[in-house]
Amino acid sequence: MTQLTRHKLIDASSVLSKVALGETHADIVIRNGTLVNVHTGELLEKTDVAIAAGRIAYVGQANHTIGDRTVVIDAAGRYVSPGLLDGHMHVESTMLSVTEFSKAALAKGTTGIFMDPHEIANVFGAEGVRLMHDEGQQLPLKVFTTYPSCVPATDDLEDAGASLTVDDIKEGMEWDNVVGLGEVMNFPGVVYGDPKMRGEIAETIKHGKTVTGHFPSEDDRMLQAYMASGVTSDHETITREQGLHKVRMGMHLMIREGSAWHDVKEVIKIVTEDKVNTANISLVTDDVNPQTLVEKGHINHVVRRAIEEGVDPVTAIQMATINVARYFKLEHDLGSITPGKYADILLIDDLTKVEPSTVITDGRVIFDKGAYCVDFPAFVYPEHIRSSMNVKRALTAEDFKLPSRGQREKTQVNVIRAIENSARTEKITAELDVKDGIILPDPGQDIVRLACIERHHGTGQISLAFAHGFQLKTGAVASTVAHDSHNLLVMGIDEQDMALAANELIRIGGGTIVVENGKVLAQVPLTIAGLMSDKSLLEVVEEVKQLDQAWKRIGCMLNAPFMTFSLIALPVIPEIRISNRGLVDVTAFKLIDVELL
Amino acid sequence: MTQLTRHKLIDASSVLSKVALGETHADIVIRNGTLVNVHTGELLEKTDVAIAAGRIAYVGQANHTIGDRTVVIDAAGRYVSPGLLDGHMHVESTMLSVTEFSKAALAKGTTGIFMDPHEIANVFGAEGVRLMHDEGQQLPLKVFTTYPSCVPATDDLEDAGASLTVDDIKEGMEWDNVVGLGEVMNFPGVVYGDPKMRGEIAETIKHGKTVTGHFPSEDDRMLQAYMASGVTSDHETITREQGLHKVRMGMHLMIREGSAWHDVKEVIKIVTEDKVNTANISLVTDDVNPQTLVEKGHINHVVRRAIEEGVDPVTAIQMATINVARYFKLEHDLGSITPGKYADILLIDDLTKVEPSTVITDGRVIFDKGAYCVDFPAFVYPEHIRSSMNVKRALTAEDFKLPSRGQREKTQVNVIRAIENSARTEKITAELDVKDGIILPDPGQDIVRLACIERHHGTGQISLAFAHGFQLKTGAVASTVAHDSHNLLVMGIDEQDMALAANELIRIGGGTIVVENGKVLAQVPLTIAGLMSDKSLLEVVEEVKQLDQAWKRIGCMLNAPFMTFSLIALPVIPEIRISNRGLVDVTAFKLIDVELL
Repeated sequence: MTQLTRHKLIDASSVLSKVALGETHADIVIRNGTLVNVHTGELLEKTDVAIAAGRIAYVGQANHTIGDRTVVIDAAGRYVSPGLLDGHMHVESTMLSVTEFSKAALAKGTTGIFMDPHEIANVFGAEGVRLMHDEGQQLPLKVFTTYPSCVPATDDLEDAGASLTVDDIKEGMEWDNVVGLGEVMNFPGVVYGDPKMRGEIAETIKHGKTVTGHFPSEDDRMLQAYMASGVTSDHETITREQGLHKVRMGMHLMIREGSAWHDVKEVIKIVTEDKVNTANISLVTDDVNPQTLVEKGHINHVVRRAIEEGVDPVTAIQMATINVARYFKLEHDLGSITPGKYADILLIDDLTKVEPSTVITDGRVIFDKGAYCVDFPAFVYPEHIRSSMNVKRALTAEDFKLPSRGQREKTQVNVIRAIENSARTEKITAELDVKDGIILPDPGQDIVRLACIERHHGTGQISLAFAHGFQLKTGAVASTVAHDSHNLLVMGIDEQDMALAANELIRIGGGTIVVENGKVLAQVPLTIAGLMSDKSLLEVVEEVKQLDQAWKRIGCMLNAPFMTFSLIALPVIPEIRISNRGLVDVTAFKLIDVELL
Repeated sequence: MTQLTRHKLIDASSVLSKVALGETHADIVIRNGTLVNVHTGELLEKTDVAIAAGRIAYVGQANHTIGDRTVVIDAAGRYVSPGLLDGHMHVESTMLSVTEFSKAALAKGTTGIFMDPHEIANVFGAEGVRLMHDEGQQLPLKVFTTYPSCVPATDDLEDAGASLTVDDIKEGMEWDNVVGLGEVMNFPGVVYGDPKMRGEIAETIKHGKTVTGHFPSEDDRMLQAYMASGVTSDHETITREQGLHKVRMGMHLMIREGSAWHDVKEVIKIVTEDKVNTANISLVTDDVNPQTLVEKGHINHVVRRAIEEGVDPVTAIQMATINVARYFKLEHDLGSITPGKYADILLIDDLTKVEPSTVITDGRVIFDKGAYCVDFPAFVYPEHIRSSMNVKRALTAEDFKLPSRGQREKTQVNVIRAIENSARTEKITAELDVKDGIILPDPGQDIVRLACIERHHGTGQISLAFAHGFQLKTGAVASTVAHDSHNLLVMGIDEQDMALAANELIRIGGGTIVVENGKVLAQVPLTIAGLMSDKSLLEVVEEVKQLDQAWKRIGCMLNAPFMTFSLIALPVIPEIRISNRGLVDVTAFKLIDVELL
């Protein structure tokens, strides 16, 4: 491998000054580019960029910085853009290790991410956070961590594999490149003075770091009460109206375009139609799956989507560069091509496409003409992180049968309605047949069985419910990716298939699976904590492709059905969810019965 | 006095949340205002602002926050603006104590300043910095300090009363409300790796604070070499071209409008004509005298000047609110009227005039209808700070006679040419008569005598030179305000008057004075360190008015002549200056002879 060297500015200052003055030569000079100037908002033609010690030494006409050993890159009129930053994302959603994810992201122009590793934290606590953070520190991608704040997502409604305390946050804030607190999802806790939430925020502010938020509600008073805590951003906004309101209120608005939700089209109207100042707005992915990475890209895809909706390309790039850096108080290191900053630079042919042909990080060309020029170091997770399934016993078909409370032939039930391309769910009711005391699913109404099996502590706990919107006609699916506590989530029509899906995932150490008629149609083994694969990007993409086809084969035609499914267990986004403890009414923040009567 | 209570956000969160939710009542609600929203850039009519615990609890329709004890202020359609912030200034230039300055500034809508007390530091070192900083902490004005970086301004060209070390900066960075390093004027030192400069910057960055700059050169390579150190701003820009370049390079550009220099007219063209993004631009005063404070205002005058030049009022206000707060990483506390921020609010009738009729800080109405509603606490400087004159002996007329080196009747001399409304000087040459071996001033050519007398250590050192541009016809002037080392600066035609002026200032403990024909025409005693008066604003204004008239009486018709004069000794701004050691060529950064041959 090529050794990663990243200099603090203070250690690079001397050589940078000398290069600027022409007293010594640059390592690399990019010539004849059109600079994307994110400070002024201009495109500056025929601008050179001189690089030394991994940082930008000089911007302008840089002949005087070129010596015999200087590598001169002819940009030939290409756009020279700062590397893109994703201000909020969960690497675990890519089902890739941080290393494999970085290969996908760097090739798409992402040079820095602000990850919230709260999925692994729900399985392995602070140890999991530390491992992913450490993995990120040896990569050409700059990996900043916002320390997970809500693990478990709620204390009262679910059981995760681990929990994080104020002391964990306090310790994490001391780590290099931990730049803030991860999305504070428990907004009622914050608003009503939960000591853990308040304590975590206090520690973060004490360290001068950024408290990132998560506010999916439309309740204005709650929003302002939430902001009073010191939370300063949100990425859950799905309407123009709410987006405008949050920017007016001083929230740093992160407009999201993930695999399973597409918020740009609507929310970007605050820029294209309301014409608000964009300084406090950024673009984020939140959650993307590996196919999206390969087919559409990463944060560059979100920038492109903004441009497609009518945003000026430089403004769109600002929202994924300088605005992000400034929000995390890293403007001195990141986010623009100006003297002293890390030399994280993209060469782009077409600014509206945002596809880099050359990617430079820390002053090294790491990706050029479709291929990597550097090796990536290996990172091996410890054995116990690769053995995360702890389910009390093998499942049987009986485990998935939900008895009715009364002696009836039909019963009214609360049903989780999934919404395509949205993180939200809707609480609906339906009438289902009861046979031999068991409430039956009804493919005709698109209502299927749902189960959530505790998988961390071997408690044997199973909760059952019903879901609508997945279009399954047969078979079953299961997943250990089940936000945020990542219990074993199973859905299907046939209870035999449901048991098979669950037992198979237990056997392989976690992952996601589709079965039909007693046969496994496809599976993605996720060995690392039951969340991430230890395979390469292309292998995982192929496995996920098979999985998607299997979902289609059993009837589901949704976009990104697996991601929508994996969120069905997340009891902090409205309106209704399943956890290992039961059916959760998120609006009321309590467990409710499946049957209405 | 009214006790100052200022709550950290974390301590106010609970009550703020409750007010937002309507569970408890606000202390104050401002109703029916037109909110200046610095985040979106909008003016929002009929917006209420609810305040509790000195911070903003709710913005919108705030009926639900009003209870029996809530003070309701009817804005009656007035504009409701965040309090203005001056991102770079020296309180000492006002000749007022921090307390008296704050009375002037708050009435004009300044609610926060970022002061660099480097004048007092040049006289009394870290003790002086601490005293002014402490004085600021008990005021309704929010006083943040950028710790002086260059005391003395140069080690090699002058002698100040004290010097600051890297250890002083290290200690200062631990103080509450020290938010950065003061203007790093020694740019050659920074560029060429001076260990003290590099050490100070390293300490500042280590503490996560902001390194403010000072770059009066037009040398692009030097600029970029300077930025490599971690310096991130500049307030010395006087041309549109340089302003545009600095913003492009990622410098936070502070556009200055002080009493003696008026940079807005030219530099603001980057906004009005080049249309650059304004997120990284702010407005500052740097140095204002007391008359300007009373007659034109403080930072509100700079905002008004920007508006007069064609900047949209909300954009202009952004440049003195949110942009400043963000630059100093204080956006969570300051710079906008949004939930959680300090309730520092102005009610303004005419947004283009920027004259507040009501000023609120920390949720208290402190100024209303032209009068203060609060008392200001007294701050008494220790006796030794009020006895700062240490000159070896009384001066005589002989001390001000500069002998020619040769036996000639005429000689060529280097002359400091002062430029009205500018901090710059120009190096010119002139031919002067020599009589009895003494080079004579020549009022006909507007060339007068200049002397700089060491006043801190009793060394008896005196340097002599000539100045052009002050239009003196008779008499003499003197000042212990003589940036930055604040030695005793004397200028005049008549050497008897020069001696009198100097001796009188020694007698009264420092200040500034005009004499003519053996009589004192006017004087401003500056008892605190020879820099600041212990009198009230109006008394000082009256004294300064008399002083200005006296300047006119002896022939000087310049705008703010005293300030231009006091900068004649500042050897870090081009092109030529006098220090206690001699005549300084600033461009060459060395002492030069007065005579050319």
